[in-house]
Amino acid sequence: LSSEFESLDYELCENKIFKEEESKKSPGSITKQNATRWVVVFFIGVCTALIACTIDICVVEMTKIKYGFLKKYIEKCVKENCLYIPYLQWLGISCGFAILASVLVTYGEPVAAGSGIPLVKCYLNGINVHRLHRLKTLFVKAAGVTCSVLGGLAVGKEGPMVHSGAAVAAGLSQGKSTSLGFDFGILKAFRCDQEKRDFVTGGAAAGVAAAFGAPIGSGVLFSLEEGSSFWNQNITWRIFFCSMVSAFTLNVVLSTYHGQLGILAYDGLLNFGKFPDIPFALLELPIFIAMGIIGGLAGALFNQMNYHISVFRRRFILSRWAKVLEVIVVCSVTVSVGFIMIYFVDDCKPLGAKDAVEFPIQMFCEDGQFNAVAAMWLQTPEASVRALFHDQPGTHNPLSVGLFFITYFFLACWTYGLSISSGIFIPALLSGAAWGRLVGLGLYRLTQGAAWADPGKYALIGAASQLGGIARVTLSLAVILIETTGNLSLGLGLMLTLLTAKFVGDFFNAGIYDMNVQLAGLPMLPWSAPPMCHGTQAQYIMSKPVVVLKEVERVSTVISVLEDTRHQGFPVIFEDRFSGSQAKQTSFGVLRGLILRSQLKILLKEKPFCSSPTGSTRPPIPLETFRMYYPRYPAFEDIHFTEEERASYLDLRPYMNPTPYTVPKHASLHRTFQLFRALGLRHLIVTDDNNEVAGMITRKTLARYR
Amino acid sequence: LSSEFESLDYELCENKIFKEEESKKSPGSITKQNATRWVVVFFIGVCTALIACTIDICVVEMTKIKYGFLKKYIEKCVKENCLYIPYLQWLGISCGFAILASVLVTYGEPVAAGSGIPLVKCYLNGINVHRLHRLKTLFVKAAGVTCSVLGGLAVGKEGPMVHSGAAVAAGLSQGKSTSLGFDFGILKAFRCDQEKRDFVTGGAAAGVAAAFGAPIGSGVLFSLEEGSSFWNQNITWRIFFCSMVSAFTLNVVLSTYHGQLGILAYDGLLNFGKFPDIPFALLELPIFIAMGIIGGLAGALFNQMNYHISVFRRRFILSRWAKVLEVIVVCSVTVSVGFIMIYFVDDCKPLGAKDAVEFPIQMFCEDGQFNAVAAMWLQTPEASVRALFHDQPGTHNPLSVGLFFITYFFLACWTYGLSISSGIFIPALLSGAAWGRLVGLGLYRLTQGAAWADPGKYALIGAASQLGGIARVTLSLAVILIETTGNLSLGLGLMLTLLTAKFVGDFFNAGIYDMNVQLAGLPMLPWSAPPMCHGTQAQYIMSKPVVVLKEVERVSTVISVLEDTRHQGFPVIFEDRFSGSQAKQTSFGVLRGLILRSQLKILLKEKPFCSSPTGSTRPPIPLETFRMYYPRYPAFEDIHFTEEERASYLDLRPYMNPTPYTVPKHASLHRTFQLFRALGLRHLIVTDDNNEVAGMITRKTLARYR
Ligand SMILES: Nc1ncnc2c1ncn2[C@@H]1O[C@H](COP(=O)(O)OP(=O)(O)OP(=O)(O)O)[C@@H](O)[C@H]1O
Ligand SMILES: Nc1ncnc2c1ncn2[C@@H]1O[C@H](COP(=O)(O)OP(=O)(O)OP(=O)(O)O)[C@@H](O)[C@H]1O
Ligand SMILES: [Mg+2]
Ligand SMILES: [Mg+2]
Repeated sequence: LSSEFESLDYELCENKIFKEEESKKSPGSITKQNATRWVVVFFIGVCTALIACTIDICVVEMTKIKYGFLKKYIEKCVKENCLYIPYLQWLGISCGFAILASVLVTYGEPVAAGSGIPLVKCYLNGINVHRLHRLKTLFVKAAGVTCSVLGGLAVGKEGPMVHSGAAVAAGLSQGKSTSLGFDFGILKAFRCDQEKRDFVTGGAAAGVAAAFGAPIGSGVLFSLEEGSSFWNQNITWRIFFCSMVSAFTLNVVLSTYHGQLGILAYDGLLNFGKFPDIPFALLELPIFIAMGIIGGLAGALFNQMNYHISVFRRRFILSRWAKVLEVIVVCSVTVSVGFIMIYFVDDCKPLGAKDAVEFPIQMFCEDGQFNAVAAMWLQTPEASVRALFHDQPGTHNPLSVGLFFITYFFLACWTYGLSISSGIFIPALLSGAAWGRLVGLGLYRLTQGAAWADPGKYALIGAASQLGGIARVTLSLAVILIETTGNLSLGLGLMLTLLTAKFVGDFFNAGIYDMNVQLAGLPMLPWSAPPMCHGTQAQYIMSKPVVVLKEVERVSTVISVLEDTRHQGFPVIFEDRFSGSQAKQTSFGVLRGLILRSQLKILLKEKPFCSSPTGSTRPPIPLETFRMYYPRYPAFEDIHFTEEERASYLDLRPYMNPTPYTVPKHASLHRTFQLFRALGLRHLIVTDDNNEVAGMITRKTLARYR
Repeated sequence: LSSEFESLDYELCENKIFKEEESKKSPGSITKQNATRWVVVFFIGVCTALIACTIDICVVEMTKIKYGFLKKYIEKCVKENCLYIPYLQWLGISCGFAILASVLVTYGEPVAAGSGIPLVKCYLNGINVHRLHRLKTLFVKAAGVTCSVLGGLAVGKEGPMVHSGAAVAAGLSQGKSTSLGFDFGILKAFRCDQEKRDFVTGGAAAGVAAAFGAPIGSGVLFSLEEGSSFWNQNITWRIFFCSMVSAFTLNVVLSTYHGQLGILAYDGLLNFGKFPDIPFALLELPIFIAMGIIGGLAGALFNQMNYHISVFRRRFILSRWAKVLEVIVVCSVTVSVGFIMIYFVDDCKPLGAKDAVEFPIQMFCEDGQFNAVAAMWLQTPEASVRALFHDQPGTHNPLSVGLFFITYFFLACWTYGLSISSGIFIPALLSGAAWGRLVGLGLYRLTQGAAWADPGKYALIGAASQLGGIARVTLSLAVILIETTGNLSLGLGLMLTLLTAKFVGDFFNAGIYDMNVQLAGLPMLPWSAPPMCHGTQAQYIMSKPVVVLKEVERVSTVISVLEDTRHQGFPVIFEDRFSGSQAKQTSFGVLRGLILRSQLKILLKEKPFCSSPTGSTRPPIPLETFRMYYPRYPAFEDIHFTEEERASYLDLRPYMNPTPYTVPKHASLHRTFQLFRALGLRHLIVTDDNNEVAGMITRKTLARYR
């Protein structure tokens, strides 16, 4: 576990100044604040969708240009025997985009690397990932993923879109931007971790809705399955609304772009094309289960290999230029493999009217035919998935699909984790669709073309199985796949496959997101305590001795505590530490409250000191001031204190949380975990039988037990 | 709030004997127990689906017989001018079924009345509703709802199916039946409230899946939206699996029944028929919002009227025969209204091949035509919904649809709450579909038959809006409607309508389920504390003085405490109550644990007494014994105690929960609520600064604040 990550404060600090502010509120102002929340959520949905549209349209248009250009030269050079020229062109264009993608991330904003979903998950779990929601991160993510896809790498753009949604939500809900350094001065009431988290949950859901053009359950389910822990109906409705607005906006913009202005049920939104109603028979169930097992095994293999690659990267690829270099190598290998396959595999298909390929390339095929392998490589991975799902049974040659699967599987595994912004959804779906189609083709031949043995259907099942095996997200994945293919009747089959893949995969290792999280040393808390820990008590795991402060503490003590320790919260006590009897030696005084490091910093900056150790009589600093500093607190090293100030006292009582959550010291780990997780705590104070502070439990204490 | 309802204990009591049992467990036994859970869940899914199938098939077959019979006589009597004969026949048959339905419920099992969803919701919220999950209840519910539907009342069978699922889950997971008085002696480890609740959540989801034939999200979402509060991934997967199995089973059985053995994607499962892909344009959004407003208003009106009817019933219709009589009256009115409408409204339509009505009745129409009103009344409400959704634009006369809506709306309102088992889903959908179709017809005429102005689509939107306005369940409802119509593209429109209807309705009153719950005085806890209560502290709301017990307590004291109070839990203290200083007068001793009434009863029955006040040296009673009694504890009034026994002591330490949850006495109501709700507590002990017991907070204390 890395100590560089700190937690977020999801607990409401109900101190005196908070209560004062609260008591001044009228019902009207509460209603107004509630309405504001809905308005903000509305704009989050709209903006997320607009960003997603921009990425989408850019990718589509630029790919057209890129592959159109290449096609021209390939056609020309096949005749003139100068195929090295289009190869070099392809290499050059792809590497150019890849370098751009990599430089943006590596030199611009390293936190924008990867899919972003694991980090958003961690944020919702309560970990403060620095710079995750900056405007700059958002820009790098959006531009970066466009470049990676254009670079022809084995990446998808869905994960980054989810991250974008989260970043948009965090930005809009705060009414200010740190990257640009401006502050609208609005929405100040939402400037606390808790409110921000609720908006980010909505933003992530909007991101899912926009990424997949999937209107309904998926966004909400994804947010829930992957994110939050406490289910509150009010938040759910806002999340729901947010993903709805996002899907709406996407729908309007994209259908307008495709010239179908105003038609909301625009079919093209189903990213993976509309599935006709394919019959689905009882006897297929064992096949689906078998495919689930394959997907689980392949997913486990994928994750294991990716784990080793990531470990290698963490050890040897450290400097920035090395990272960019690796991206170039991967990009060159991808292009070369693609080119070699196109060159050597003769998979000629007649130019059909139905399965229109955008850039049919003839290569060495006869006139009126095109090279099916070239069609797979010379388009976006998304289009390839669509092709595998919907092409007629005869379109693909088993050999070329098989080869494509093997190369793409390993390339995707190598690619994920590069210093570019990239999603894993599409690569996983594509490799799964490839082997799924192989299974389908086999069945098609075996049954001599039975209606149920539709290779496209099996490609879908394979894709689901592969993605389930890699990401282990079952529920929302099933809904996403159903929504993006517009096919409800396959629901049962999809779910069976996904559950099987998940179980098989879990037998070997963790999902790719969890693996990433563990590798990065992020202290994410699992859903519940490990089994067989009912004998472990809070007192065995708590940190001791506890650094505590008195209710009215000397300023010099406060300063030295902040200087000497790195703790983020300090119990506030009533009694003198060692004034008690011998028995009291193990305790640190009677608990009165909890004060956070951030609050202490602000107090030291604002200096509401008093001269007497009995407390201050001046009115306390209002909550307004505390909010002003959020989320970047003053560095107290820069503050200068006079001798007189150092000798004076600081009355913590109006600012401390007077009712922090506690556990008795003989509480079990299970119970401690449940309390901590269900309420999303940051500090849990362990008390003894007399309500005296005995120890401290934080996220990192618990995250060790998994 | 009624005091007749007690709570469930969702908190794990981690006492000494529990820990001892726990420490003996091997990893293997934990895995085995986990596997058992999945197996149990599998059977829950299967059984729920089988019951749903039985109800479904019974209803379909018996309706065929009933209406076939009536049709014959009507046709005959139209010619011979003896229409009073079929009228009396109709009345007789319907009232017969209605009486059966009512007698079953009223004399058999009153808890089986109504839809059951509110009660299942309460159970999941933590309220122990007596006899809710008995085998007898299940039988009465299933048979009762079949009879009510056959009685031609304005009821649906979906709510009862959800309740059946819950009952099946509770029964199967315990491996015993109280109604039949047998005990398989298996699954003993699941005999505690917490485990049972998790299974019941799954069962309810399976019920939804089976009721609507909706395979995926709906069951899970419904369980979550309506039920549980703490979202745990492990439970979610089991819920998911359970509803999947249930949908599978239903699919297999029903498709076999309809002669399409082995075809899993059997279309007939989409209860409301498959929707073709209807275009859907931006300019319809305002119409959808307007319809949402209408639905919200109509729903609020419905709930308000039903509220007054329910209050009337609670006051005046108390005896059993009066309840049965009311059912007879409602049934007669329903039949008469139907008959009158058929008789007087001349809405003749040509017999088309496409919209095949099962029993076309000619009445006074010309040859080759049939009476459209008769078609609406002489079929199950479900079939009528399907007709309104899918019939060609010209099929229904606006006047007859309007009349039908008005009568049906009021009939449904009167019917809901009768002493029969009945759901509100279908009646709400049907009345909504009626006015929705009216809107659609209007638009169709206005636009002279524009493609988007499909009356069927508007019937669907109207149905959603009406149901949203009555039940206020948005998320899962949207998914259910989408799944049962197989139409994804309308998703956005449905959601918009539902959200609008919910908001408008909420402005006036609560949803029908919540209204029911409140009327019955069930202490259901809302999701969060009311706003503006940050000033309310735990000490203002807690119960005082607290009845406490000492760690080793005299048996006579225990007996008298149990006799004198009705409390369900007693804090166990260390110190003598009034041995302390003056300041201690407000406290009741240092908290050591919590013991439940049920545990005390078992202890008094088992008599592990000791003679010395320092405690027992004998090994404590094992957890096994405690589990044996669950959930019916010995009545301690029947136990006889000798004088010697009364004078001896009972050592509570091995049995008490040593780490009950507590709040400090100056904690806010908001924080108290959050702790209580998030962890599903039953007892929350209020302590002062020295960990001494100051008061007690239970469900009913909090349920008053809403
Ligand atoms: N006031 C304190 N006195 C003594 N030990 C403490 C105190 N606060 C925290 N600790 C312990 O010190 C370690 C690091 O403290 P820190 O406050 O950084 O917590 P953390 O686990 O990093 O969580 P967070 O993410 O909130 O910073 C933890 O093991 C924690 O239990
Ligand atoms: N040990 C106790 N001493 C004093 N008052 C208590 C004690 N236990 C409960 N009470 C209070 O007495 C009232 C009724 O007690 P009871 O135990 O029946 O709780 P309840 O609210 O009905 O919840 P439950 O559903 O768990 O029975 C409640 O207001 C509760 O706060
Ligand atoms: Mg730390
Ligand atoms: Mg009670």
